[in-house]
Amino acid sequence: MNPEWDEQRVGAGLKPVYGPDDLAGLSHLGGMPGEAPFVRGPYPGMYRQRPWTIRQYAGYGDAATSNLAYRQSLMQGAQGLSVAFDLPTHRGYDSDEPEVAADVGMAGVAIDSADDMRRLFDGIPLEQVSVSMTMSGAVLPVLAAFLVAAEEAGVPYDRLRGTIQNDILKEFMVRNTWIHAPEPSLRIATDVVEWLSTHAPKFHGMSVSGYHFQEAGADPPLELALTLANARTYVDALRARGLDVDAFCGGLSFFFGVGKQFYMEIAKLRAARLLWHDIVRERGGTTARATAMRMHCQTSGWTLAAQSPHNNIARTTIEGMAAIFGGTQSLHTNGFDEALALPGAQAARIARDTQLILQHEFDLCDVADPWAGSYLVESLTGGMVDAVWSILGEIDAQGGVLAALESGWVQQRIHRNALRMQARIDAGDEVVVGVNRFQDDDEAPPVCLEVDGSRVRAEQANRLATLRAKRDEPAVRQALGALAQAARGGDRNLLACAIDAMRCRATVGECTRALLEVWPRYAAQLAYDKAHYGAARAGNANWAAACDRVRWLRTTLGRAPRILVAKLGQDGHDRGAKAVAAALSDAGFQVRLTPLFQSAGAVAAQARDDDFDAIGISTLGGAHLAYVSELFEALRQRGDAVPVFVGGIIPAAHRRALELAGVRGIYGPGTPQEQIVTKIVMVLTPKDQGVGMHQVAAD
Amino acid sequence: MNPEWDEQRVGAGLKPVYGPDDLAGLSHLGGMPGEAPFVRGPYPGMYRQRPWTIRQYAGYGDAATSNLAYRQSLMQGAQGLSVAFDLPTHRGYDSDEPEVAADVGMAGVAIDSADDMRRLFDGIPLEQVSVSMTMSGAVLPVLAAFLVAAEEAGVPYDRLRGTIQNDILKEFMVRNTWIHAPEPSLRIATDVVEWLSTHAPKFHGMSVSGYHFQEAGADPPLELALTLANARTYVDALRARGLDVDAFCGGLSFFFGVGKQFYMEIAKLRAARLLWHDIVRERGGTTARATAMRMHCQTSGWTLAAQSPHNNIARTTIEGMAAIFGGTQSLHTNGFDEALALPGAQAARIARDTQLILQHEFDLCDVADPWAGSYLVESLTGGMVDAVWSILGEIDAQGGVLAALESGWVQQRIHRNALRMQARIDAGDEVVVGVNRFQDDDEAPPVCLEVDGSRVRAEQANRLATLRAKRDEPAVRQALGALAQAARGGDRNLLACAIDAMRCRATVGECTRALLEVWPRYAAQLAYDKAHYGAARAGNANWAAACDRVRWLRTTLGRAPRILVAKLGQDGHDRGAKAVAAALSDAGFQVRLTPLFQSAGAVAAQARDDDFDAIGISTLGGAHLAYVSELFEALRQRGDAVPVFVGGIIPAAHRRALELAGVRGIYGPGTPQEQIVTKIVMVLTPKDQGVGMHQVAAD
Repeated sequence: MNPEWDEQRVGAGLKPVYGPDDLAGLSHLGGMPGEAPFVRGPYPGMYRQRPWTIRQYAGYGDAATSNLAYRQSLMQGAQGLSVAFDLPTHRGYDSDEPEVAADVGMAGVAIDSADDMRRLFDGIPLEQVSVSMTMSGAVLPVLAAFLVAAEEAGVPYDRLRGTIQNDILKEFMVRNTWIHAPEPSLRIATDVVEWLSTHAPKFHGMSVSGYHFQEAGADPPLELALTLANARTYVDALRARGLDVDAFCGGLSFFFGVGKQFYMEIAKLRAARLLWHDIVRERGGTTARATAMRMHCQTSGWTLAAQSPHNNIARTTIEGMAAIFGGTQSLHTNGFDEALALPGAQAARIARDTQLILQHEFDLCDVADPWAGSYLVESLTGGMVDAVWSILGEIDAQGGVLAALESGWVQQRIHRNALRMQARIDAGDEVVVGVNRFQDDDEAPPVCLEVDGSRVRAEQANRLATLRAKRDEPAVRQALGALAQAARGGDRNLLACAIDAMRCRATVGECTRALLEVWPRYAAQLAYDKAHYGAARAGNANWAAACDRVRWLRTTLGRAPRILVAKLGQDGHDRGAKAVAAALSDAGFQVRLTPLFQSAGAVAAQARDDDFDAIGISTLGGAHLAYVSELFEALRQRGDAVPVFVGGIIPAAHRRALELAGVRGIYGPGTPQEQIVTKIVMVLTPKDQGVGMHQVAAD
Repeated sequence: MNPEWDEQRVGAGLKPVYGPDDLAGLSHLGGMPGEAPFVRGPYPGMYRQRPWTIRQYAGYGDAATSNLAYRQSLMQGAQGLSVAFDLPTHRGYDSDEPEVAADVGMAGVAIDSADDMRRLFDGIPLEQVSVSMTMSGAVLPVLAAFLVAAEEAGVPYDRLRGTIQNDILKEFMVRNTWIHAPEPSLRIATDVVEWLSTHAPKFHGMSVSGYHFQEAGADPPLELALTLANARTYVDALRARGLDVDAFCGGLSFFFGVGKQFYMEIAKLRAARLLWHDIVRERGGTTARATAMRMHCQTSGWTLAAQSPHNNIARTTIEGMAAIFGGTQSLHTNGFDEALALPGAQAARIARDTQLILQHEFDLCDVADPWAGSYLVESLTGGMVDAVWSILGEIDAQGGVLAALESGWVQQRIHRNALRMQARIDAGDEVVVGVNRFQDDDEAPPVCLEVDGSRVRAEQANRLATLRAKRDEPAVRQALGALAQAARGGDRNLLACAIDAMRCRATVGECTRALLEVWPRYAAQLAYDKAHYGAARAGNANWAAACDRVRWLRTTLGRAPRILVAKLGQDGHDRGAKAVAAALSDAGFQVRLTPLFQSAGAVAAQARDDDFDAIGISTLGGAHLAYVSELFEALRQRGDAVPVFVGGIIPAAHRRALELAGVRGIYGPGTPQEQIVTKIVMVLTPKDQGVGMHQVAAD
């Protein structure tokens, strides 16, 4: 194996043993927790002073169901709320808009108006409970709805505690819940920070997020560097408005993923504080509140296995410990069934209990920054700082983050990391217990959470109709006009305008459409890398055999087999689609990867018009049953029988339904690419070519 | 709360933050792994050189079933075997002896002869697989059977790898699987070490065990001190025979528990190596093999909860990490259902997978002694060394370990620790998630492993009859006579004699009886401490209310209520019985605690003869269904209807059976003592005293 790939290995870059010599030349040693540059933590007493907040990210279909779950969770030991919105809400659609029908309520709670937001927080004392909202795309109407709900519950803005994610740059790099182009999106984000820092100073106006980089494939230094590069960009944009660095930086928080490189993750969180301190100081920040990074962490979703899912409890525990050792202020631990579906009730309870056990039963809260002085962790912390400065330098050399994302450099770098890791796992060089080694799955598939999206959609449509019938329509129109005007170049703050609009019961979709008049919907191509995955598998017998089969099929067909890899609906997770496209291409397929946000009809038309032999659907948004049946319907209407394959997060109970619908292969997390290649070859083999089929089937 | 109790708190003794000043005065810093005194580990490369051995302790009823489980486990990633024997085997009984009928096969595998041992290892290559045997009581015949089985499989002794526990001193202190008195037991243990160090040098002749101290209630320094005190005693006994310290110390290994004091546990394992090095050097040892401690660790069984049992996966993961950070050579992780029964297949698989995940998926194996240099862990390591020397000094002051155990000092010290921890948990000062706080058990009781002991007993009886019919009886008699002669004062090695006896198919029980002719069965009283638990609960409202109820009952009865707390059968785990006896006594009951190893008939007779109001049975050996039904039968024969209460490790499926049999209260791990007190008061309240009953029932 090419030694380059070994950089990706878990544990790569670690020496077998560390000693006092490894501390030589490190400049960050010697401080205490609460002392600049805060390597050892933002507060002197750390978890004795204030344990990390147990904050589980969740949202269930509609506001009332989610409200019940939040209240129960608070009773059972959760210490903060973290709202997961559904994809249409993220992308600024109302629940009754037909193009998003299948996604309503499937991956989080559907919120269309301030009334929904009131239902969501009914009976929850917003002056006491800190609320985190993962929202970056439709941040204006959604945050405005929250502020209106608080206001109408009698809670003044300046008593609200919580965080709005509002980190739009990373959406363009990885998660893709953007609406407008990067430049106007940056205007929105900074307007939000500015408004909150004045009116709701205890509410974090932005949570700059690295988590999604790691989920998409970045290793710890790349995750941290991209996060800080984005943070710098926001800070510079806010400074350019003449705002006080100390004031607005105090309102920024951070969000990191914690994956399998245990020691590196601890070092990453410690280094993050040091780097942020230096970055803010460089820009004129002076106060502890501005320069001491506070962070939320989440254990990795990508490292969870669909096989033997209870094993994920151990994985999540280990990752949670790294976050705690790194000094996080708040933590989400994943449910053990999340490689199959949204967490069920028991999985959510165990995930929360894992944190309670870490917090209450062991002595982990008793000592601040326990790894301080460790030859290993101090050395890694120093190394992480250097590695991050170096990547930041590369980004500067390209003209900054906006240039680096518009050129695709960021996306490619993450994608290549993901391909290398995929190759290592597929080859068995990276062990995933129960997946590519020690397979012994004795677990009945867990009963996964089922969301009835069509019920949510119908109810939301009713609510929207009632809301529109009762509101003061001219006032709504006026408020939406003012919002568009502010976007067009007025000097009013966009969030202030959005609050006015949501207060008179404009909807999330209406606010978004008002802004879209000025700033049209952005569109971006998905790109995948050729030859990278294949090179990483060079010399591997299983991969070579799969490629041989494609070669045989090319000979039989007289041309390369053609596959269309598509993302349907509002789901923007593209790691899997890009990885499969790259692997199929390297195996010898001719592959086209659609842009995001396709409709089933468009994919069917494309498959027919451009004569594809197969369609591959990648789905991580929960709406696969609806989209796949729409796709088959569209294919049937065209008289087409092109075989369809599906990969992604799919509960066991849905596999049979998809098969009955006609899906020829279903692939969950952890499937080696050669298995997908081989199955597609088998399905595409012409009926009269029994030998080839036999060769493959007998394998 | 009395500040004295706070010593027991998890995290007690930890400062809020550690810095470079905490390294001042530590003399152990600066070394590297593989360098004396081995604080940083016994080998230079540690887990890169050789990962810890995944060694899961297990034994199932009979030899054939266990053999199947071992072979499956080896196929699925286990790297060594660890045999759990049933209690009759531990205590030197054959499976057909009537007094042990109920215990046969219930808590491990029943082994009566070399033929059983052959079946146990059938098809397992003993020259390749390292075998650990937890056997200290009947070590002579059981180890001899193993050696004969290996010999008959064609594996020479000097190619055998593994460990025989053979640590009898700790049995007298806590686990109670002794047979003879301490002095002759020490002779047996040292004969075993001597024989193995000559004939099977790769087989560890002793695993000096701290685990059981921790399970019985000792905190990390006490666990380590008692372990080393015992080890010193063995070393001195072997030196007194004129043996070479370097030669026999190389054959000793160690076994520690890892519980909830995460940082202390890491420090304990590091300090253990330093202390052992110094102890062996003091006694003339010089080689690295003799002075570098090698250890096995096991996660704590006592910290597992019967409620929400899947939470135990997280607990075990955290404890497993402490063992790995401490540099253990081998590890057992507990099944999540072990607060209810022996581990079921899925629980055993998840426990093993937890280790595989720790070993393969994270970077934990990549760096030796990762905590080296940490201000916290280095400081705790130094503090642990000092604390252990201080306890060793106390033991010396009493004239050594034998004196300290015969006076009961050791047992009392452990018991008091256990009572303090129990009081803290019962009062809620120590949180156990899902047990005394955050209760939210949404789990269906797991399907626990069911052992059909009567089938095992019948089959073993058949095998014994066949064996006795076919063997050369005079040869057996002669071999047994030679064994007794060696015990009587001959100079032949006892293990050599036992091998001769087992080779001609003497049984475990026959060998034991031959030795019992010379060294009769030992008997020991169980003692519990008065006023210690009650003092720790002083001021606690729940406890005060329970005591008030007992006071009311005393007034009603005109005397103290009398309860007999009994241990039935061969189960020697006495932590729970002693704790319950102490608490009931402090609450105002008159309590008698029986000696260990009672028959049901004897307990029934005692209850009748001495006019007890209630019987409490503590059971951790799995044989509760049989013993409780025998007890009711014996009570009925006497026309007695004294109420019976049962506490211990009881699968959910057995609770109903026990209730139907007439048991009035069943208490699993985690039950607060006031709950037991209250229920017993309610049951003992005379029928015409409705007010008192009502007061209690309405609570």
